[in-house]
Amino acid sequence: MNREQMLEKIKQAMPEKRFQHTLGVEKTALLYAEIYEESTEKASIAALLHDYAKYYPDDQAEKLIREENMDPRLLKYSRALWHAPIGAYLAREEFGVTDSEILEAIRVHTTGSTKMNKLDKIIFLADYTEPGRDFPGVEEARTLSKKSLDAGMLFALRRTIAYLSDKEQPIFPDTFDSYNTFAFLKQEGDVERFE
Amino acid sequence: MNREQMLEKIKQAMPEKRFQHTLGVEKTALLYAEIYEESTEKASIAALLHDYAKYYPDDQAEKLIREENMDPRLLKYSRALWHAPIGAYLAREEFGVTDSEILEAIRVHTTGSTKMNKLDKIIFLADYTEPGRDFPGVEEARTLSKKSLDAGMLFALRRTIAYLSDKEQPIFPDTFDSYNTFAFLKQEGDVERFE
Repeated sequence: MNREQMLEKIKQAMPEKRFQHTLGVEKTALLYAEIYEESTEKASIAALLHDYAKYYPDDQAEKLIREENMDPRLLKYSRALWHAPIGAYLAREEFGVTDSEILEAIRVHTTGSTKMNKLDKIIFLADYTEPGRDFPGVEEARTLSKKSLDAGMLFALRRTIAYLSDKEQPIFPDTFDSYNTFAFLKQEGDVERFE
Repeated sequence: MNREQMLEKIKQAMPEKRFQHTLGVEKTALLYAEIYEESTEKASIAALLHDYAKYYPDDQAEKLIREENMDPRLLKYSRALWHAPIGAYLAREEFGVTDSEILEAIRVHTTGSTKMNKLDKIIFLADYTEPGRDFPGVEEARTLSKKSLDAGMLFALRRTIAYLSDKEQPIFPDTFDSYNTFAFLKQEGDVERFE
């Protein structure tokens, strides 16, 4: 599937606003890939597909989570989390993506994980900071993300936790674990990674 | 050991300010025990002993955590957490407390847990809201704690998480798990427990 066909298929799967967000994430992911010397091709594909499953029907998503042996805890938590692992599944099934790094970056783009590599962080932060995002702190998130992926991640995760806990929402354990991973990394003095 | 002997031994183990805090926690725990029909005797003993290990030497605490098979994850996280399980241990060893509910209430008074009973919540919230406490939100915490232990817990845990994540501190997993337990309880519509 070439880029044009991929874009067309993605566009069909979502409202125009979400498609514009997708393009913003790609643009930002490419910028971060340049800064941090990651494959721009992988960044582009993961970004374009990261929200492909956003409008996938809940009942079918639930079925896939069960049948494809995805993390069963997902079923207990917000459905807003489901599109990430479902997106990774559909990237493989519908777009023929086989690169495990791209699939993992899509899978963890909402919750984070304890083992995020460069591409995972780039997609997570591109999603958090793309030009269409507008929330208190987004400029700080952009500045941090361009200086250090780990600093960007720690900022994004703690703000996410603060936002969800302020609303008294349950928080998926991977998000906590991911937050702790970056908090320990900073605390243990790996300071240059945060500057 | 009678109350007077117990008080004297506790007083010797801490600065005057911490001892006054301890008495404040006892007073508040007795109030909550009255409201929620819990044993005032258990509430009193757990409150008096909850911070007994606050000034226990770190090296001896570390040794006990290892030798007494306490949660090994404690060693990775802030030493400020250690006095709770160490306090439970010393309550048994030095004060002869054998009541498992009292010991558990001391053990979980800083992190919370996923299985908090009435006494656990009373001690946790008495510690959080005793008259000597003064932080933004303490009045709301007091009001909530007198209305519903679960509402008080959800408030205290989300504020604790917000406070620690704002400082980019690692957060002990039990605190997250405890937060999620109360967030789910509220979300799942057990509303009268929060009013």
